[in-house]
Amino acid sequence: MNKSADTEHDLNTLIKNRWSPRAFDPAAKVTKAELEALFEAARWAPSSNNSQPWRYLYGIRGDATFGKILENLKPNNARWAFRASALAVAVARTKKPDGTVEKTGQYDTGQASAYFSLQAQHRGLSVRQMAGFQPSIAEALAIPADYTPMAVIAIGGRGDAALLGDETLHAQEVSIRTRRPLAGIAHNGEWSADFEV
Amino acid sequence: MNKSADTEHDLNTLIKNRWSPRAFDPAAKVTKAELEALFEAARWAPSSNNSQPWRYLYGIRGDATFGKILENLKPNNARWAFRASALAVAVARTKKPDGTVEKTGQYDTGQASAYFSLQAQHRGLSVRQMAGFQPSIAEALAIPADYTPMAVIAIGGRGDAALLGDETLHAQEVSIRTRRPLAGIAHNGEWSADFEV
Repeated sequence: MNKSADTEHDLNTLIKNRWSPRAFDPAAKVTKAELEALFEAARWAPSSNNSQPWRYLYGIRGDATFGKILENLKPNNARWAFRASALAVAVARTKKPDGTVEKTGQYDTGQASAYFSLQAQHRGLSVRQMAGFQPSIAEALAIPADYTPMAVIAIGGRGDAALLGDETLHAQEVSIRTRRPLAGIAHNGEWSADFEV
Repeated sequence: MNKSADTEHDLNTLIKNRWSPRAFDPAAKVTKAELEALFEAARWAPSSNNSQPWRYLYGIRGDATFGKILENLKPNNARWAFRASALAVAVARTKKPDGTVEKTGQYDTGQASAYFSLQAQHRGLSVRQMAGFQPSIAEALAIPADYTPMAVIAIGGRGDAALLGDETLHAQEVSIRTRRPLAGIAHNGEWSADFEV
């Protein structure tokens, strides 16, 4: 299924063709080495003062960590994410060692996850990120209080939309990708009324 | 100057070769159309519920907005950023229209800026992001209270490191890029002691 973005300007192929499926192939497997090759991309993201405030905990389908992450997803995500080859939790350092706020912790972690996702696309793997998880995921994975779980990332091979076995999910899977118009996110000048439409 | 990352695993060329210069070519120019082609990449980043909480205000060297952004940089950034072809402010929606916190606003905006940066790399342009700006930048650009400026992004053509005219800046410009080891950011399992080293 090709869901190449209908762009207003020419785009790099990885960015143009990436999208976030829910239908993962339950037979597809990824190895630890293959996942490490994706985290290598996250590793090289930029960050404020090169602070690298991102951490990733991951499980491979069948292992205990995969089970713990899956258990802590909200039901509307768990019902499809169990087919992913791996699940990772993106964690941002939100407090510095001296107790002050790490202002760019979340922003920089988002960048690292973007690099991760595009590297996955480069390797022919798909990624879907979810904010829909239970706060209990922090305790389940022994994440310290100075760090905040930002997203769970499902990684795997794309499967047939029919796998989803649900009409609404199926419709979302095959729908065209949409975005705000360019004028709604970028403006040469100060704040634009188009930003709030 | 080639500052290709010394990676533990093979990486996509854009990610491998991207780095954040301070020496921008003062003769290089970018047009509004060229910048819009970069914001197009930000536009297609993923976000929680497709909320797209990112906004970018930008100025092109010589225009009023460029001047306003430059004035609101901390001096250690202003002293090199004036040579950039354009300056943009990445702004995250951090409060929803209903007044509740937009939990993934900063994280998702980081992703959009990562897509922007890699698209710039794809077009042969360089980007450096800065968290070092004055809070007054919000008022200068009429950014509403529900939105938080996260970074200023310098965009342009790479210049000679000698332009920087300062020994420390020059040394930073030509230094090798470094990152935490992979085990310090990604772990198959729960929280790792390597994450805090």
